[in-house]
Amino acid sequence: MGRWEPDAQGRLQQAAMALYTERGYDQTTVAEIAERAGLTERTFFRYFADKREVLFGGQRQLLEQFTKGVAGAPDSASPLDAVSAALQEAAAFFGDRRDGSRLRQAVIDANPALQERELSKRFALAAAMADGLVSRGVAETTARLTAEAGAAVFHLAFEQWLADDKHDLAHFIRNAIADLKASM
Amino acid sequence: MGRWEPDAQGRLQQAAMALYTERGYDQTTVAEIAERAGLTERTFFRYFADKREVLFGGQRQLLEQFTKGVAGAPDSASPLDAVSAALQEAAAFFGDRRDGSRLRQAVIDANPALQERELSKRFALAAAMADGLVSRGVAETTARLTAEAGAAVFHLAFEQWLADDKHDLAHFIRNAIADLKASM
Repeated sequence: MGRWEPDAQGRLQQAAMALYTERGYDQTTVAEIAERAGLTERTFFRYFADKREVLFGGQRQLLEQFTKGVAGAPDSASPLDAVSAALQEAAAFFGDRRDGSRLRQAVIDANPALQERELSKRFALAAAMADGLVSRGVAETTARLTAEAGAAVFHLAFEQWLADDKHDLAHFIRNAIADLKASM
Repeated sequence: MGRWEPDAQGRLQQAAMALYTERGYDQTTVAEIAERAGLTERTFFRYFADKREVLFGGQRQLLEQFTKGVAGAPDSASPLDAVSAALQEAAAFFGDRRDGSRLRQAVIDANPALQERELSKRFALAAAMADGLVSRGVAETTARLTAEAGAAVFHLAFEQWLADDKHDLAHFIRNAIADLKASM
Protein backbone atom coordinates (compact mmCIF):
# COMPACT_ATOMS: atom_id res chain seq x y z
CA MET A 1 0.00 0.00 0.00
CA GLY A 2 1.32 3.46 -0.86
CA ARG A 3 2.04 6.10 1.76
CA TRP A 4 -0.73 8.30 0.52
CA GLU A 5 -4.20 6.95 1.12
CA PRO A 6 -7.20 8.74 -0.35
CA ASP A 7 -9.30 9.96 2.59
CA ALA A 8 -7.45 7.76 5.07
CA GLN A 9 -8.78 9.89 7.92
CA GLY A 10 -12.41 9.45 6.86
CA ARG A 11 -11.96 5.69 6.40
CA LEU A 12 -10.39 5.36 9.85
CA GLN A 13 -13.22 7.35 11.39
CA GLN A 14 -15.83 5.20 9.70
CA ALA A 15 -14.08 1.97 10.70
CA ALA A 16 -13.74 3.17 14.29
CA MET A 17 -17.39 4.16 14.57
CA ALA A 18 -18.49 0.83 13.11
CA LEU A 19 -16.34 -1.12 15.59
CA TYR A 20 -17.29 1.04 18.60
CA THR A 21 -20.93 0.43 17.73
CA GLU A 22 -20.59 -3.31 17.01
CA ARG A 23 -18.42 -4.42 19.90
CA GLY A 24 -18.11 -1.43 22.21
CA TYR A 25 -15.53 1.30 22.62
CA ASP A 26 -13.47 -0.42 25.34
CA GLN A 27 -13.31 -3.66 23.37
CA THR A 28 -11.91 -2.02 20.24
CA THR A 29 -8.17 -1.63 19.59
CA VAL A 30 -6.35 0.73 17.26
CA ALA A 31 -4.98 -2.32 15.41
CA GLU A 32 -8.53 -3.46 14.69
CA ILE A 33 -9.60 -0.03 13.49
CA ALA A 34 -6.65 0.15 11.11
CA GLU A 35 -7.32 -3.35 9.85
CA ARG A 36 -11.00 -2.65 9.21
CA ALA A 37 -10.04 0.50 7.29
CA GLY A 38 -7.44 -1.45 5.26
CA LEU A 39 -4.66 0.74 6.63
CA THR A 40 -1.74 0.40 9.04
CA GLU A 41 -1.61 1.39 12.71
CA ARG A 42 1.11 3.78 11.71
CA THR A 43 -1.31 5.56 9.41
CA PHE A 44 -3.87 5.69 12.24
CA PHE A 45 -1.40 7.51 14.45
CA ARG A 46 -0.65 9.98 11.69
CA TYR A 47 -4.21 11.28 12.11
CA PHE A 48 -5.20 10.52 15.72
CA ALA A 49 -3.31 10.50 19.03
CA ASP A 50 -5.44 7.60 20.30
CA LYS A 51 -8.78 5.91 19.76
CA ARG A 52 -10.55 8.52 21.85
CA GLU A 53 -9.47 11.30 19.51
CA VAL A 54 -11.48 9.70 16.71
CA LEU A 55 -14.53 10.84 18.68
CA PHE A 56 -13.22 14.19 19.90
CA GLY A 57 -10.88 15.38 17.16
CA GLY A 58 -11.39 18.59 15.22
CA GLN A 59 -12.49 20.39 18.35
CA ARG A 60 -10.04 23.24 18.14
CA GLN A 61 -11.29 24.57 14.82
CA LEU A 62 -14.87 24.30 16.00
CA LEU A 63 -14.05 26.25 19.16
CA GLU A 64 -12.31 28.96 17.16
CA GLN A 65 -15.40 29.19 15.00
CA PHE A 66 -17.54 29.76 18.11
CA THR A 67 -15.24 32.52 19.36
CA LYS A 68 -15.28 34.23 15.97
CA GLY A 69 -19.02 33.79 15.61
CA VAL A 70 -19.65 35.55 18.91
CA ALA A 71 -17.11 38.29 18.23
CA GLY A 72 -18.53 38.92 14.77
CA ALA A 73 -22.22 39.28 15.71
CA PRO A 74 -23.79 42.69 14.98
CA ASP A 75 -22.77 45.45 17.40
CA SER A 76 -26.36 45.90 18.45
CA ALA A 77 -26.72 42.29 19.59
CA SER A 78 -27.07 41.65 23.34
CA PRO A 79 -24.53 39.19 24.80
CA LEU A 80 -27.06 36.34 24.65
CA ASP A 81 -28.03 37.23 21.09
CA ALA A 82 -24.37 37.20 20.04
CA VAL A 83 -24.04 33.73 21.56
CA SER A 84 -27.22 32.66 19.82
CA ALA A 85 -25.90 33.89 16.46
CA ALA A 86 -22.67 31.92 16.92
CA LEU A 87 -24.55 28.76 17.90
CA GLN A 88 -26.82 28.97 14.87
CA GLU A 89 -23.84 29.57 12.60
CA ALA A 90 -22.13 26.49 14.01
CA ALA A 91 -25.34 24.53 13.59
CA ALA A 92 -24.89 24.68 9.82
CA PHE A 93 -21.76 22.55 10.24
CA PHE A 94 -23.88 19.68 11.58
CA GLY A 95 -26.48 19.97 8.84
CA ASP A 96 -25.94 16.62 7.09
CA ARG A 97 -24.30 14.83 10.00
CA ARG A 98 -27.32 13.77 12.04
CA ASP A 99 -26.84 10.02 11.51
CA GLY A 100 -23.13 10.14 12.25
CA SER A 101 -23.78 12.31 15.30
CA ARG A 102 -26.33 9.78 16.58
CA LEU A 103 -23.85 6.91 16.29
CA ARG A 104 -21.20 8.96 18.04
CA GLN A 105 -23.58 9.93 20.83
CA ALA A 106 -24.61 6.31 21.39
CA VAL A 107 -20.94 5.34 21.81
CA ILE A 108 -20.41 8.16 24.30
CA ASP A 109 -23.61 7.44 26.23
CA ALA A 110 -22.44 3.84 26.75
CA ASN A 111 -19.12 4.85 28.34
CA PRO A 112 -18.76 6.94 31.55
CA ALA A 113 -15.16 7.96 30.81
CA LEU A 114 -16.23 9.34 27.43
CA GLN A 115 -19.12 11.18 29.08
CA GLU A 116 -16.66 12.97 31.33
CA ARG A 117 -14.63 13.97 28.29
CA GLU A 118 -17.83 15.21 26.61
CA LEU A 119 -18.65 17.27 29.68
CA SER A 120 -15.28 18.96 29.63
CA LYS A 121 -15.90 19.74 25.95
CA ARG A 122 -18.98 21.61 26.98
CA PHE A 123 -16.92 23.79 29.28
CA ALA A 124 -14.41 24.40 26.53
CA LEU A 125 -17.28 25.57 24.33
CA ALA A 126 -18.45 27.96 27.05
CA ALA A 127 -14.90 29.30 27.48
CA ALA A 128 -14.56 29.86 23.72
CA MET A 129 -17.79 31.85 23.57
CA ALA A 130 -16.87 33.81 26.71
CA ASP A 131 -13.64 34.86 24.94
CA GLY A 132 -15.71 36.11 22.03
CA LEU A 133 -17.94 38.13 24.37
CA VAL A 134 -15.00 39.67 26.22
CA SER A 135 -13.57 40.78 22.86
CA ARG A 136 -16.92 42.59 22.30
CA GLY A 137 -16.34 44.52 25.53
CA VAL A 138 -18.70 42.46 27.69
CA ALA A 139 -17.63 42.33 31.37
CA GLU A 140 -15.99 39.04 32.28
CA THR A 141 -18.61 37.91 34.78
CA THR A 142 -21.46 38.52 32.35
CA ALA A 143 -19.45 36.91 29.56
CA ARG A 144 -18.90 33.71 31.53
CA LEU A 145 -22.50 33.39 32.69
CA THR A 146 -23.94 34.10 29.25
CA ALA A 147 -21.53 31.71 27.56
CA GLU A 148 -22.35 28.94 30.03
CA ALA A 149 -26.05 29.46 29.53
CA GLY A 150 -25.32 29.32 25.78
CA ALA A 151 -23.42 26.05 26.17
CA ALA A 152 -26.42 24.61 28.04
CA VAL A 153 -28.64 25.78 25.16
CA PHE A 154 -26.41 24.08 22.62
CA HIS A 155 -26.29 20.84 24.59
CA LEU A 156 -30.07 20.67 24.99
CA ALA A 157 -30.77 21.68 21.39
CA PHE A 158 -28.31 19.08 20.12
CA GLU A 159 -30.03 16.36 22.15
CA GLN A 160 -33.45 17.40 20.81
CA TRP A 161 -32.10 17.50 17.26
CA LEU A 162 -30.69 13.96 17.53
CA ALA A 163 -34.11 12.73 18.70
CA ASP A 164 -35.93 14.47 15.84
CA ASP A 165 -36.23 14.01 12.07
CA LYS A 166 -37.95 17.16 10.85
CA HIS A 167 -36.20 20.29 12.06
CA ASP A 168 -32.63 21.46 11.76
CA LEU A 169 -30.35 22.16 14.71
CA ALA A 170 -30.73 25.93 14.36
CA HIS A 171 -34.48 25.55 14.96
CA PHE A 172 -33.89 23.94 18.37
CA ILE A 173 -31.25 26.52 19.26
CA ARG A 174 -33.66 29.39 18.51
CA ASN A 175 -36.37 27.72 20.61
CA ALA A 176 -34.05 27.10 23.55
CA ILE A 177 -32.80 30.70 23.48
CA ALA A 178 -36.42 31.90 23.50
CA ASP A 179 -37.20 29.55 26.42
CA LEU A 180 -34.25 30.86 28.36
CA LYS A 181 -35.29 34.47 27.79
CA ALA A 182 -38.82 33.65 28.94
CA SER A 183 -37.50 32.17 32.20
CA MET A 184 -36.17 35.52 33.45
CA MET B 1 -10.75 3.67 72.95
CA GLY B 2 -14.50 3.35 73.32
CA ARG B 3 -16.78 2.70 70.40
CA TRP B 4 -18.39 6.08 70.68
CA GLU B 5 -16.16 8.98 69.77
CA PRO B 6 -17.38 12.54 70.32
CA ASP B 7 -17.55 14.21 66.86
CA ALA B 8 -15.49 11.48 65.22
CA GLN B 9 -16.75 12.62 61.81
CA GLY B 10 -15.62 16.21 62.35
CA ARG B 11 -12.22 15.11 63.64
CA LEU B 12 -11.71 12.84 60.63
CA GLN B 13 -12.68 15.65 58.28
CA GLN B 14 -10.27 18.05 59.94
CA ALA B 15 -7.45 15.51 59.92
CA ALA B 16 -8.07 14.70 56.25
CA MET B 17 -8.10 18.35 55.19
CA ALA B 18 -4.89 19.01 57.11
CA LEU B 19 -3.13 16.06 55.46
CA TYR B 20 -4.49 16.81 51.95
CA THR B 21 -3.18 20.34 52.35
CA GLU B 22 0.19 19.41 53.86
CA ARG B 23 1.23 16.52 51.65
CA GLY B 24 -1.32 16.35 48.84
CA TYR B 25 -4.49 14.35 48.31
CA ASP B 26 -2.89 11.49 46.37
CA GLN B 27 -0.16 11.06 48.96
CA THR B 28 -2.58 10.69 51.87
CA THR B 29 -3.95 7.31 53.00
CA VAL B 30 -7.03 6.52 55.07
CA ALA B 31 -4.74 4.95 57.71
CA GLU B 32 -2.91 8.27 58.07
CA ILE B 33 -6.14 10.24 58.34
CA ALA B 34 -7.41 7.92 61.09
CA GLU B 35 -4.11 8.09 62.92
CA ARG B 36 -3.99 11.89 62.80
CA ALA B 37 -7.54 12.00 64.17
CA GLY B 38 -6.63 9.54 66.92
CA LEU B 39 -9.20 7.05 65.61
CA THR B 40 -9.16 3.70 63.82
CA GLU B 41 -9.54 3.03 60.10
CA ARG B 42 -12.65 1.11 60.99
CA THR B 43 -14.14 4.28 62.46
CA PHE B 44 -13.19 6.17 59.30
CA PHE B 45 -15.16 3.73 57.17
CA ARG B 46 -18.15 4.08 59.47
CA TYR B 47 -18.46 7.68 58.22
CA PHE B 48 -16.92 7.74 54.73
CA ALA B 49 -16.82 5.27 51.85
CA ASP B 50 -13.32 6.44 50.89
CA LYS B 51 -10.97 9.40 51.20
CA ARG B 52 -12.72 11.23 48.36
CA GLU B 53 -16.01 11.22 50.22
CA VAL B 54 -14.47 13.39 52.92
CA LEU B 55 -14.51 16.14 50.29
CA PHE B 56 -17.84 15.32 48.64
CA GLY B 57 -19.98 13.86 51.41
CA GLY B 58 -23.24 15.39 52.54
CA GLN B 59 -24.18 16.21 48.98
CA ARG B 60 -27.55 14.50 48.99
CA GLN B 61 -29.05 16.63 51.74
CA LEU B 62 -27.74 19.78 50.06
CA LEU B 63 -29.30 18.75 46.75
CA GLU B 64 -32.64 18.06 48.41
CA GLN B 65 -32.47 21.49 49.95
CA PHE B 66 -32.00 23.03 46.48
CA THR B 67 -34.97 21.14 45.08
CA LYS B 68 -37.18 22.21 48.00
CA GLY B 69 -35.91 25.77 47.85
CA VAL B 70 -36.90 26.08 44.19
CA ALA B 71 -40.23 24.33 44.71
CA GLY B 72 -41.08 26.54 47.69
CA ALA B 73 -40.37 29.94 46.12
CA PRO B 74 -43.39 32.30 45.88
CA ASP B 75 -45.89 31.39 43.15
CA SER B 76 -45.29 34.73 41.47
CA ALA B 77 -41.55 34.09 41.03
CA SER B 78 -40.26 33.54 37.48
CA PRO B 79 -38.28 30.31 36.98
CA LEU B 80 -34.98 32.18 37.31
CA ASP B 81 -36.16 34.02 40.41
CA ALA B 82 -37.19 30.71 42.01
CA VAL B 83 -33.69 29.38 41.29
CA SER B 84 -32.19 32.57 42.68
CA ALA B 85 -34.22 32.23 45.90
CA ALA B 86 -33.04 28.64 46.37
CA LEU B 87 -29.41 29.60 45.77
CA GLN B 88 -29.58 32.43 48.29
CA GLU B 89 -31.21 30.15 50.84
CA ALA B 90 -28.45 27.59 50.38
CA ALA B 91 -25.86 30.35 50.67
CA ALA B 92 -26.74 30.72 54.37
CA PHE B 93 -25.38 27.19 54.89
CA PHE B 94 -21.91 28.35 53.81
CA GLY B 95 -22.00 31.47 56.00
CA ASP B 96 -19.21 30.61 58.46
CA ARG B 97 -17.40 28.09 56.27
CA ARG B 98 -15.35 30.35 54.05
CA ASP B 99 -11.95 29.23 55.40
CA GLY B 100 -12.85 25.54 55.26
CA SER B 101 -14.25 26.00 51.75
CA ARG B 102 -11.01 27.65 50.64
CA LEU B 103 -8.92 24.75 51.91
CA ARG B 104 -11.24 22.26 50.22
CA GLN B 105 -11.13 24.20 46.95
CA ALA B 106 -7.33 24.32 46.98
CA VAL B 107 -7.21 20.53 47.36
CA ILE B 108 -9.63 20.08 44.46
CA ASP B 109 -7.86 22.61 42.23
CA ALA B 110 -4.61 20.65 42.65
CA ASN B 111 -6.12 17.36 41.44
CA PRO B 112 -7.68 16.81 37.98
CA ALA B 113 -9.64 13.72 39.07
CA LEU B 114 -11.25 15.71 41.87
CA GLN B 115 -12.06 18.50 39.45
CA GLU B 116 -14.00 16.07 37.31
CA ARG B 117 -15.94 14.95 40.36
CA GLU B 118 -16.61 18.61 41.21
CA LEU B 119 -17.89 19.21 37.68
CA SER B 120 -20.33 16.34 37.91
CA LYS B 121 -21.54 17.82 41.21
CA ARG B 122 -22.42 20.96 39.35
CA PHE B 123 -24.63 18.97 37.00
CA ALA B 124 -26.24 17.24 39.95
CA LEU B 125 -27.03 20.68 41.37
CA ALA B 126 -28.61 21.73 38.07
CA ALA B 127 -30.66 18.53 37.95
CA ALA B 128 -31.89 19.07 41.53
CA MET B 129 -33.06 22.61 40.74
CA ALA B 130 -34.65 21.49 37.46
CA ASP B 131 -36.70 18.97 39.47
CA GLY B 132 -37.87 21.80 41.70
CA LEU B 133 -38.90 23.88 38.68
CA VAL B 134 -40.79 21.00 37.05
CA SER B 135 -42.73 20.54 40.30
CA ARG B 136 -43.74 24.22 39.93
CA GLY B 137 -45.22 23.42 36.52
CA VAL B 138 -42.33 24.82 34.46
CA ALA B 139 -41.88 23.01 31.12
CA GLU B 140 -38.97 20.59 31.17
CA THR B 141 -36.86 22.37 28.57
CA THR B 142 -37.15 25.70 30.32
CA ALA B 143 -36.54 24.01 33.67
CA ARG B 144 -33.29 22.44 32.50
CA LEU B 145 -31.95 25.58 30.88
CA THR B 146 -32.83 27.81 33.81
CA ALA B 147 -31.38 25.35 36.32
CA GLU B 148 -28.14 25.07 34.37
CA ALA B 149 -27.84 28.83 34.15
CA GLY B 150 -28.48 28.86 37.92
CA ALA B 151 -25.73 26.29 38.52
CA ALA B 152 -23.34 28.49 36.52
CA VAL B 153 -24.40 31.44 38.70
CA PHE B 154 -23.71 29.46 41.87
CA HIS B 155 -20.33 28.29 40.64
CA LEU B 156 -19.19 31.78 39.69
CA ALA B 157 -20.57 33.39 42.85
CA PHE B 158 -18.88 30.74 44.98
CA GLU B 159 -15.55 31.44 43.31
CA GLN B 160 -15.95 35.19 43.86
CA TRP B 161 -16.93 34.63 47.48
CA LEU B 162 -13.83 32.51 48.16
CA ALA B 163 -11.64 35.30 46.73
CA ASP B 164 -13.34 37.96 48.85
CA ASP B 165 -13.44 38.91 52.52
CA LYS B 166 -16.24 41.46 52.78
CA HIS B 167 -19.47 40.18 51.26
CA ASP B 168 -21.49 37.06 51.90
CA LEU B 169 -22.21 34.43 49.26
CA ALA B 170 -25.81 35.65 48.77
CA HIS B 171 -24.43 39.02 47.65
CA PHE B 172 -22.48 37.45 44.80
CA ILE B 173 -25.44 35.27 43.84
CA ARG B 174 -27.73 38.31 43.58
CA ASN B 175 -25.15 40.15 41.47
CA ALA B 176 -24.63 37.21 39.12
CA ILE B 177 -28.39 36.76 38.65
CA ALA B 178 -28.66 40.46 37.81
CA ASP B 179 -25.75 40.15 35.33
CA LEU B 180 -27.40 37.19 33.67
CA LYS B 181 -30.70 39.04 33.32
CA ALA B 182 -28.90 42.02 31.83
CA SER B 183 -27.28 39.81 29.18
CA MET B 184 -30.60 38.96 27.51
